[in-house]
Amino acid sequence: MSAAVEPFKSRRVYLVLRDRIAGGALPAGARLPGEPDLAAEHGVARVTVRRALDQLAQDGLVERRPGVGTFVLGGTALPPATADFADVFTHLKEMGRRTEVRLLSFGYAVPPPPVAQALELLPGEAAQRAVRVRRTADGPFSYLTTHVPARIGQTYSEAELASQPLLALLERSGLRIGRARQSIGATLAGPDVAEVLEVGIGAPLIALTRLVQDEAGRPVEHLHALYRPDRFSFEMQMQRTGAEGERRWSPMVPAGAEPANANGTGREPSPRDEERTGS
Amino acid sequence: MSAAVEPFKSRRVYLVLRDRIAGGALPAGARLPGEPDLAAEHGVARVTVRRALDQLAQDGLVERRPGVGTFVLGGTALPPATADFADVFTHLKEMGRRTEVRLLSFGYAVPPPPVAQALELLPGEAAQRAVRVRRTADGPFSYLTTHVPARIGQTYSEAELASQPLLALLERSGLRIGRARQSIGATLAGPDVAEVLEVGIGAPLIALTRLVQDEAGRPVEHLHALYRPDRFSFEMQMQRTGAEGERRWSPMVPAGAEPANANGTGREPSPRDEERTGS
Repeated sequence: MSAAVEPFKSRRVYLVLRDRIAGGALPAGARLPGEPDLAAEHGVARVTVRRALDQLAQDGLVERRPGVGTFVLGGTALPPATADFADVFTHLKEMGRRTEVRLLSFGYAVPPPPVAQALELLPGEAAQRAVRVRRTADGPFSYLTTHVPARIGQTYSEAELASQPLLALLERSGLRIGRARQSIGATLAGPDVAEVLEVGIGAPLIALTRLVQDEAGRPVEHLHALYRPDRFSFEMQMQRTGAEGERRWSPMVPAGAEPANANGTGREPSPRDEERTGS
Repeated sequence: MSAAVEPFKSRRVYLVLRDRIAGGALPAGARLPGEPDLAAEHGVARVTVRRALDQLAQDGLVERRPGVGTFVLGGTALPPATADFADVFTHLKEMGRRTEVRLLSFGYAVPPPPVAQALELLPGEAAQRAVRVRRTADGPFSYLTTHVPARIGQTYSEAELASQPLLALLERSGLRIGRARQSIGATLAGPDVAEVLEVGIGAPLIALTRLVQDEAGRPVEHLHALYRPDRFSFEMQMQRTGAEGERRWSPMVPAGAEPANANGTGREPSPRDEERTGS
């Protein structure tokens, strides 16, 4: 067979093996078939198998012992353990203590139609557009694209946005932030984002869209954020409420917040609570 | 060039074009380059370009006019508009009015180590394991794998789980459900899940892991759920709270719930509120 790596086939082999491990068909401690056997089973080159095994090892799912074989690791979470890193309801603003942000681009542009619509811009009206990447000591974990109406954007400079949280700059301009509405989904990394987040093209990412409004309900910021799921996840606690038969859940407010719904059963503080999400 | 489709290359072309549309380099109404030009630009076969364009059309990002060309559609949300379908804090239980569930498997098995650990099982202890798929009239949207300690699982039958929400069966057994803790991430569809959810292998999926506890804090259910992001998303509203300078957000309780944190600014009810998530 050719010695060229076949990325799509490699991904397929990776996903098949990942699911076998997740499903228990390959339990902890099990030795995977050898590379030649896997190559024959999947009809691919050995180098393709090797790439799939490398990916599994990188995920912490298997251990490769040179000259011995590849073994399933125990105690691994599947899907890959997402860090108890960010609380969706924690401080969206007081960032930066343990994370670093890098401003990739800053300018004014007419945003794509759905963003313009969400921000209630006039046809052809420009917005302040910024792209930032946020990283910990482990590397990059989020790719943030923000749009802010130009009248607000003009109150801060590129240098200020490079060093201060956007929400702080918005409030400095005199805005009183009211609510935010957000939606969480998933997408694949395109070439540009893949390079910045140091993942392969087509890698899975958490996709978040958030619209921040002032106290009068006027939109003041549109955020589109992409997160590496191996370095970031949304953690939340819920509590069953309502009369029996009602069967409803309500969110629990993070420790340290001002819990208007305090009920004596607040969330335990996490040692990582100081690490914040947001923009 | 060969007429064989090159799936990895096709995905790459798709992601490049998707990002150009999202970034505004290809604005609404723009005509994409012709298939031969795109094929030459990316060094791929025309059939590969065609597949990428089909995927863009399926996402609602472009319109293909036979004999004329391919045009960027306006008003499309990017990433693909996720339905305002489920509220993460709404009724996790009263399912089934507008969605249907199908039980794919039911049995007892020793769960993978992270699940066994979360459920506090003894080494080698089995759990009731079920795989279900949930669908609307549009098709499948979630793939749910649940593990329940065997002593609780034995209180319901396969037929009951095929027709009733798991949470209802848990409560019928006498359990008093307390809290749930969940984590939201992203992953790629493996072959089995891809077939059930009717997506391509390697498609992006929202991954949720939830641990449900009784009022005494004992784990009673472990849920691993995979969602198609084009049919499902997590929607939430947050409100800025705390003194100025504190810069914190707290969740807003969905309309209809018993809002212990009622503050007169509850979330507007959505027309889709009756459609529920959960297991």
